[in-house]
Amino acid sequence: MYDDSMPAEGTAGDSEPRQYRHGFRNDYSEGAHPRLLQALAQASTQQNRGYGLDRHSRRAAELIRAHVCRDDVDVHLLVGGTQTNLVALAAFLRPHQAAIAAGSGHIATHETGAIEATGHKVLTVPTDDGKLTPAAIAPLLDGHGSEHMVQPRLVYVSDSTELGTIYTRAELQALSQYCRQRGLLLYLDGARIGSALTATGNDLTLADIATLTDAFYIGGTKNGALVGEALVIVDDALKADMRYLVKQRGAMLAKGMVLGTQFTALFEDGLFFELARHANLMAARLREGLARLGVGFLVDSPSNQIFPLLPAAVVERLEALYAFERWQALPDGRVAIRLVTSWATPQAAVDGFLADAQALAAIAAPAPRADATAAMEH
Amino acid sequence: MYDDSMPAEGTAGDSEPRQYRHGFRNDYSEGAHPRLLQALAQASTQQNRGYGLDRHSRRAAELIRAHVCRDDVDVHLLVGGTQTNLVALAAFLRPHQAAIAAGSGHIATHETGAIEATGHKVLTVPTDDGKLTPAAIAPLLDGHGSEHMVQPRLVYVSDSTELGTIYTRAELQALSQYCRQRGLLLYLDGARIGSALTATGNDLTLADIATLTDAFYIGGTKNGALVGEALVIVDDALKADMRYLVKQRGAMLAKGMVLGTQFTALFEDGLFFELARHANLMAARLREGLARLGVGFLVDSPSNQIFPLLPAAVVERLEALYAFERWQALPDGRVAIRLVTSWATPQAAVDGFLADAQALAAIAAPAPRADATAAMEH
Amino acid sequence: MYDDSMPAEGTAGDSEPRQYRHGFRNDYSEGAHPRLLQALAQASTQQNRGYGLDRHSRRAAELIRAHVCRDDVDVHLLVGGTQTNLVALAAFLRPHQAAIAAGSGHIATHETGAIEATGHKVLTVPTDDGKLTPAAIAPLLDGHGSEHMVQPRLVYVSDSTELGTIYTRAELQALSQYCRQRGLLLYLDGARIGSALTATGNDLTLADIATLTDAFYIGGTKNGALVGEALVIVDDALKADMRYLVKQRGAMLAKGMVLGTQFTALFEDGLFFELARHANLMAARLREGLARLGVGFLVDSPSNQIFPLLPAAVVERLEALYAFERWQALPDGRVAIRLVTSWATPQAAVDGFLADAQALAAIAAPAPRADATAAMEH
Amino acid sequence: MYDDSMPAEGTAGDSEPRQYRHGFRNDYSEGAHPRLLQALAQASTQQNRGYGLDRHSRRAAELIRAHVCRDDVDVHLLVGGTQTNLVALAAFLRPHQAAIAAGSGHIATHETGAIEATGHKVLTVPTDDGKLTPAAIAPLLDGHGSEHMVQPRLVYVSDSTELGTIYTRAELQALSQYCRQRGLLLYLDGARIGSALTATGNDLTLADIATLTDAFYIGGTKNGALVGEALVIVDDALKADMRYLVKQRGAMLAKGMVLGTQFTALFEDGLFFELARHANLMAARLREGLARLGVGFLVDSPSNQIFPLLPAAVVERLEALYAFERWQALPDGRVAIRLVTSWATPQAAVDGFLADAQALAAIAAPAPRADATAAMEH
Repeated sequence: MYDDSMPAEGTAGDSEPRQYRHGFRNDYSEGAHPRLLQALAQASTQQNRGYGLDRHSRRAAELIRAHVCRDDVDVHLLVGGTQTNLVALAAFLRPHQAAIAAGSGHIATHETGAIEATGHKVLTVPTDDGKLTPAAIAPLLDGHGSEHMVQPRLVYVSDSTELGTIYTRAELQALSQYCRQRGLLLYLDGARIGSALTATGNDLTLADIATLTDAFYIGGTKNGALVGEALVIVDDALKADMRYLVKQRGAMLAKGMVLGTQFTALFEDGLFFELARHANLMAARLREGLARLGVGFLVDSPSNQIFPLLPAAVVERLEALYAFERWQALPDGRVAIRLVTSWATPQAAVDGFLADAQALAAIAAPAPRADATAAMEH
Repeated sequence: MYDDSMPAEGTAGDSEPRQYRHGFRNDYSEGAHPRLLQALAQASTQQNRGYGLDRHSRRAAELIRAHVCRDDVDVHLLVGGTQTNLVALAAFLRPHQAAIAAGSGHIATHETGAIEATGHKVLTVPTDDGKLTPAAIAPLLDGHGSEHMVQPRLVYVSDSTELGTIYTRAELQALSQYCRQRGLLLYLDGARIGSALTATGNDLTLADIATLTDAFYIGGTKNGALVGEALVIVDDALKADMRYLVKQRGAMLAKGMVLGTQFTALFEDGLFFELARHANLMAARLREGLARLGVGFLVDSPSNQIFPLLPAAVVERLEALYAFERWQALPDGRVAIRLVTSWATPQAAVDGFLADAQALAAIAAPAPRADATAAMEH
Repeated sequence: MYDDSMPAEGTAGDSEPRQYRHGFRNDYSEGAHPRLLQALAQASTQQNRGYGLDRHSRRAAELIRAHVCRDDVDVHLLVGGTQTNLVALAAFLRPHQAAIAAGSGHIATHETGAIEATGHKVLTVPTDDGKLTPAAIAPLLDGHGSEHMVQPRLVYVSDSTELGTIYTRAELQALSQYCRQRGLLLYLDGARIGSALTATGNDLTLADIATLTDAFYIGGTKNGALVGEALVIVDDALKADMRYLVKQRGAMLAKGMVLGTQFTALFEDGLFFELARHANLMAARLREGLARLGVGFLVDSPSNQIFPLLPAAVVERLEALYAFERWQALPDGRVAIRLVTSWATPQAAVDGFLADAQALAAIAAPAPRADATAAMEH
Repeated sequence: MYDDSMPAEGTAGDSEPRQYRHGFRNDYSEGAHPRLLQALAQASTQQNRGYGLDRHSRRAAELIRAHVCRDDVDVHLLVGGTQTNLVALAAFLRPHQAAIAAGSGHIATHETGAIEATGHKVLTVPTDDGKLTPAAIAPLLDGHGSEHMVQPRLVYVSDSTELGTIYTRAELQALSQYCRQRGLLLYLDGARIGSALTATGNDLTLADIATLTDAFYIGGTKNGALVGEALVIVDDALKADMRYLVKQRGAMLAKGMVLGTQFTALFEDGLFFELARHANLMAARLREGLARLGVGFLVDSPSNQIFPLLPAAVVERLEALYAFERWQALPDGRVAIRLVTSWATPQAAVDGFLADAQALAAIAAPAPRADATAAMEH
């Protein structure tokens, strides 16, 4: 049962907690997979070195190096996505240098100016699907060339993107090659890299990413961990003194084993990919079920986030039963909602949602229309 | 068995892991108390609101408000101490304003310039025991009065201090009164507030602290939690928009329940104080045992950190058996070491350390001296 | 004779200095008006208090207060525009707060991320003419409402704008009222306020601006001074400790009289407006002359910056004779260039430019076309 | 006649302007030397490129390169000392890196936390005379070695120091060698380098400084210019993109010729050194005159700042006649005052001060003492 709580300290918000049949609001509603909790409990009885120097963090780094097929990358286990982005970008950029992101990029929109708070501008490029391309970046670069403007230095991409879309190997290769030609660093935000790498149509691997980018992170929080993102630094020039920079931003856990144990559990036996596959499967079931009802989608996203377009009246009724986000209102009266599945989403919840959607669509349909499908197409 | 691991990424360090009889290096070597792990596991099966809006975080805040005897304080659950300090101070200070800390203060020494990285100078005052007083602060204030110097605005104290000393109620009252007279905010770093409040000689309560300071934090990490510090904001003028500031510094957990469950478990049945009392008891046993061996101490610290003065030769031999920090070399050849106990320190480890210290002191003693005790007094 | 020098240190650029008939590149090519230089020379023989506490700076502040018809505003004399913007915005905003600017706004484009370097995001709104309106700002505000995004707090406008357009009193009133309703500060960048206030169609006064904004600055550099911008703080809540913030950003001149003397000379006898009127007159002469040749304009700008649309071939030939900036290439093959006049622009230079433009247009015109005018209309 | 004005905006201060016989408060009370003003006036009639790309700035850079006997240094003309320090240090340091300064160092005390506002800690070393040595720095370096503390990276020295003392060639060589051994950059604040290089006992040249440091600046403001400091970057690794960093901090003048003309005038015919020599001569005359009266000094300073120790009663009476700063009260009742001479100090003012000091000392002397000299020795 999803608990939609009272507002937190200092937050204006709805004053009543609400109970839903299920929450599709995000992929961090549930806690950690039992194997991670078990690893944590076991390590809790030991004494471990502090600040990430413990055996578990070392072991996790080794496993990640094995998965990216490179001995020479540095791995730093951090707590959350915004933290990882700000630690990395503030470490990689000189004060006058800027990051380039899609207009929908997380650092550009939903991190409360975390990158700017470290002194750096985030330049944005409009996209339809959240993905950057050399062609999209080129005009921005061409418009920056003197000391009166910031110096674009790092390209930020996320895979999967904020719109659930994913990069193909060819796309990431093209971007990587372009970045190298133009003297740009390529950084990949992998908050949902598990879902991306196990999505239908994906042909990228962690090893590819470690070849094509200068740095990236592997998201644990949204794929079965309590907390945890593994920052992988590929480019030698970016490695120096990173632990200072992690510590300075308040990102170095005293009990680093909290991260080490969880990443070890995720990467020891392929659990990371297994959990992501489940989330994708549940999203696919939702997507296909809704498509069968005639529902269209804002964007074609093969990962664990989908954006169905529903009549406003249907959305309103669904909101009484399920927790999810409204994404965008369309001029035709439909509303794009965001449904997110997770490693823990029960198939029954998906099926329940589909049944409810079908029923509500029927109710919401104007009288003369015979079937829910048609009504929902608008 | 304490594991002293290989160095982390990008760290120069000893190349071999080492095994010790026990570690007294710090109070964050062990993980979380089983009741916290159990609470985490239980909450992991639910769906919870993200970003600290969940029922567990709310419940933890209520429990903390009950413990500080004030309905009107804001509680924000954060991850670690450096993070909490930088989020709070960066939120409370305008750009030209500075914090005042003891020369040994954590923000002044061991946070890699985290406060400066948010733009603020940390002014320091020399102390013998890590504690600030109005008399110690006054000359600094008198020396700052024009726009050519930073404006001192916030007094940072820690209880217990970095030297294991604690504030009495009278001392904190005097400081609080002075701060209000001089237009200074008073902020208390409570990374080890559990140990301080349960130490012999303490007469402060959380309620006192919430009366005397403008903001403070209650440390979970060093008292039985995996991660977690509870920032309590007392002063209404400091409350506005704090969630923005938490988010901006990468300090807002997607799975806020990780913090909420742990603080609930700590404060529901007095576990927080029970764990701290155990750590203090073990430190007292060490202190008394060493004193019986004639060992002196750098400072009289009643909490879970003690600083015995041992001959360098004894320290060297102890280092082969136990993990701990060298703190300071004295001109007379003795070395102050730091021994830290925790909620999880076994009494057997303490007794083992005392026995080993006695035996090593005997060996290290120069021939003509009959007893270890005398040798160690130097 | 305009000197287009060699590149500066660390700058790639054309390797040969070039001589032009005249420069219309900007309004800061010439130095200071003789009366300002004379005031400087005279004050140079005195001893004056440092750091802006001198009699000249005081006198300038008094004159400015008289011109804005308010005794209660604070006046700070600073050196340049980017400096003034960054000092002011960093002083006025808390860390999570952002400024809103037109997409063409100076702080958004041509200050090398100076505002971001102080930690604040600059949000932009697209405009055609560089002017902000409540309607343009509203969607941005509506899209910002949670702690996951920055908090819009200050609206930045410039008058005249980067496109030479100006605000009417009604427009600024509407914006001011809207800002107050929405809890936003209104800040006006007056780098070219002299030109704006003396432009055809202007109905604003300095007194109006001091009523409608929370803070603004009066630009000296682009209107006859060597250096100097006068920041006027209207809103009491923004005044505290400003001298600390000025000093901290390296913006407090040891010899503050350098600014005080110049602003006194500018505002003692109306020289400020006289110089601006001359610049506008020269721009109007250029505008009318080009219009007579059939030239169109990118935007209808009544101040000292105009943006004629000329065939690329004409632009290229003009570039051999005159220094100016290419602004934008149009799809139809025309190029918008920027011509800027100043307090020192000789009428002969304007007339020379018009004659050359007419002659070049004739040459550039395709054979069958009879007149230059027609050719240039494209 | 020195004018001690009313307080500036937002400044608490003495409410009455005061007239003094002369001001020895600092070396920036007077404006610019006539030759600089003339150069400015002449260049004001030309059109010049903006932003430091003009012929005068180029010429000044060439002259400075000639004076430092190196073709390969980059020269950037900036406005003031705090600005130059913050631009340079923020450009040279990564976020976790700190500067080391004497406890009396300008960046540590009188720049309102300007360096910290760019994110960097300033570590201080106590000194008696304001000068750093390898021996003074070594303990600080030894105490910093892990990622929990900032990384010392740059040594900041000033010549002359804040106490008027100067470095010998041997001293600067020793420091330079030490810095290179320990991986530290050496930066010299030359706000008063003119006075230092022309002081009795000096054996350094600008060429030496360009050999021994990584970067330094040549102060114009305190040696006859209206504004202006010439930052010289020697170390190739520090040169990249400096113009971006200058612009970003609001330090790039639109009318760069303001700086170029003045530095050209200072360095074309040795005026820079001539002016500094005059200031030193006047300080020497003061020093010798006071010494003849039996006055002692806080520190032995051969440059244009001296710190005589006078009985408090004498200081109080002198304050009615002359503007100067009280520096430090001694336990024996004497007060160290700071007297600063400049390029423009008239000999008559010095002689007047000496005569007044002698007369006041006689009055202030206790009855039984026969001569002023004895009284002032205390």
